[in-house]
Amino acid sequence: MISTDLTRLLGIRHPVLLAPMDGTAGGELAAAVSDGGGLGMIGGGYADPDWLRREIALAGEARVGIGFIAFALDERPDTLQLALDADPVAIQLSFGDPRPHARRIKDHGTLLICQVQSDEEIDRALEAGADVLIAQGQDGGGHGRGQRATMGLVPSMVDRVAPLPVAAAGGIADGRGLAAAITLGAGGVSLGTRFLASPEAISTPAEAAAILEGRSIDTVRTSAVDVIRGPRWPDGLDGRILRNRLTESWNGTDDDEATRRLYAESEPDDRTIRETWAGEGLDLITSLEPAAAMVEAIAAEAARALGFAHATLTDR
Amino acid sequence: MISTDLTRLLGIRHPVLLAPMDGTAGGELAAAVSDGGGLGMIGGGYADPDWLRREIALAGEARVGIGFIAFALDERPDTLQLALDADPVAIQLSFGDPRPHARRIKDHGTLLICQVQSDEEIDRALEAGADVLIAQGQDGGGHGRGQRATMGLVPSMVDRVAPLPVAAAGGIADGRGLAAAITLGAGGVSLGTRFLASPEAISTPAEAAAILEGRSIDTVRTSAVDVIRGPRWPDGLDGRILRNRLTESWNGTDDDEATRRLYAESEPDDRTIRETWAGEGLDLITSLEPAAAMVEAIAAEAARALGFAHATLTDR
Repeated sequence: MISTDLTRLLGIRHPVLLAPMDGTAGGELAAAVSDGGGLGMIGGGYADPDWLRREIALAGEARVGIGFIAFALDERPDTLQLALDADPVAIQLSFGDPRPHARRIKDHGTLLICQVQSDEEIDRALEAGADVLIAQGQDGGGHGRGQRATMGLVPSMVDRVAPLPVAAAGGIADGRGLAAAITLGAGGVSLGTRFLASPEAISTPAEAAAILEGRSIDTVRTSAVDVIRGPRWPDGLDGRILRNRLTESWNGTDDDEATRRLYAESEPDDRTIRETWAGEGLDLITSLEPAAAMVEAIAAEAARALGFAHATLTDR
Repeated sequence: MISTDLTRLLGIRHPVLLAPMDGTAGGELAAAVSDGGGLGMIGGGYADPDWLRREIALAGEARVGIGFIAFALDERPDTLQLALDADPVAIQLSFGDPRPHARRIKDHGTLLICQVQSDEEIDRALEAGADVLIAQGQDGGGHGRGQRATMGLVPSMVDRVAPLPVAAAGGIADGRGLAAAITLGAGGVSLGTRFLASPEAISTPAEAAAILEGRSIDTVRTSAVDVIRGPRWPDGLDGRILRNRLTESWNGTDDDEATRRLYAESEPDDRTIRETWAGEGLDLITSLEPAAAMVEAIAAEAARALGFAHATLTDR
């Protein structure tokens, strides 16, 4: 067992947070991650109240958190109340300004987790009164900022916000990565792609297969999905997906009608054209595992990695 | 003290290798790193025999290695003999195919270190009979491949080449990064940017100041230096430098005459136009330190980080 500032604050057995992936991290996956000892997070994403209500119900009695895309919550503030009414362990805000929503979260007595990628975002998160920061490197899957990578980002963010607990995200998919995050000064990790390869994720067999078969080298950051599928994202934020006909076709401009047509005419589950969000930890993901068992396995592997690493220390 | 497969193979006290930075990692810096207990590497770079002869002499009796840009050695194979005649601990080959040069290195009884960024390069390094691989993430400073970042790259490369010793490179600049590398399965690290901030590096005061004042967020990968200053590098290889008027001006094409003129007419030490190679660990570098003391400090900090991380383990 690994006990850190993060596990103590969140009241969890293992320092593993589920990234609240929009539409994919539903109630069943969140409950399973919490059941395994981590913190399951429902992916409230664009703040669709109907989806969220259903997934909160699916999580049942499990002790979970709920995440939102902050700029989407600006348009649908009522969905935040819906989330708070479920008394989640924590609300995670990513992408956008957390400050307009922070007061309601804090007033409800709920922990606020802010995912950040840059110094400016740290400043806003601190002003918002964040209880936990997630330092997300550009190596991560899904949305983020295509700038700094996890290895250098985490220790410099830890230095900047200490003693606030930090979770590391990006390029991490196993216990060695969790152990590395802890040596860098983080209190745990937030994992997305790893949990896509679990039966509890809301995904199709083709999507799961793409994750298992995909290679890290084949992930790329792109704005194509947001420009073509919508909604538009703020400048500087894009997403890491598996390279496919979409990324090959896209010319990087708003008026790429050929790629818009390619996307519009494709089947919703055609992985050769539709987006499969995935991070650079992909090479470490080779099998589909139940999420609860995965959390336990990652924590156990991290403990072993810390033991092996500590055993390299000699008296002189 | 941290004892790993890498320290034992190389016969060094601390698992810290100096990146053989062309023109910057001279004999004095290499000797200082070895004096501190790491492995100093002379940056043979483009294989200029006169430069190398002088720097080997400056290293004196120190036990050091020598690094080359492999594709440059193709043109100047005699410089490899000059290096071998100095009986270095190891020869490091980066960027290009190590196989044409491997036989002479191995026949001389010298350890071969290959720096790699991709699976294809791993395959060539293994064919060449590499004794050590350096897994270099795109977060690193100087030349490299703008693809995978260190956090995900290192464990997947370790899995692929075990039990061959691996050193991690990219975004690492302190003892926490060394500790993280070891938990990821590496036997140590190869550090470049960190040693630029030492008095023994061959650099100007303006260059050292740029490193101390620069921020990670201001480093960018670019081909501008290689296209404008020359020589041309193979496709896919570029370099990470501090953003400046050069990177802002460059339009990404060979016939950018305005940027060529800007560069040609600038003073050689004008950091607002000339290249300052730097990696994403930059935020962790805030003072100029003698290289030997720096190696000792990094090793001591890594030991503390491994101790702290190990102390998070509880019985259950």
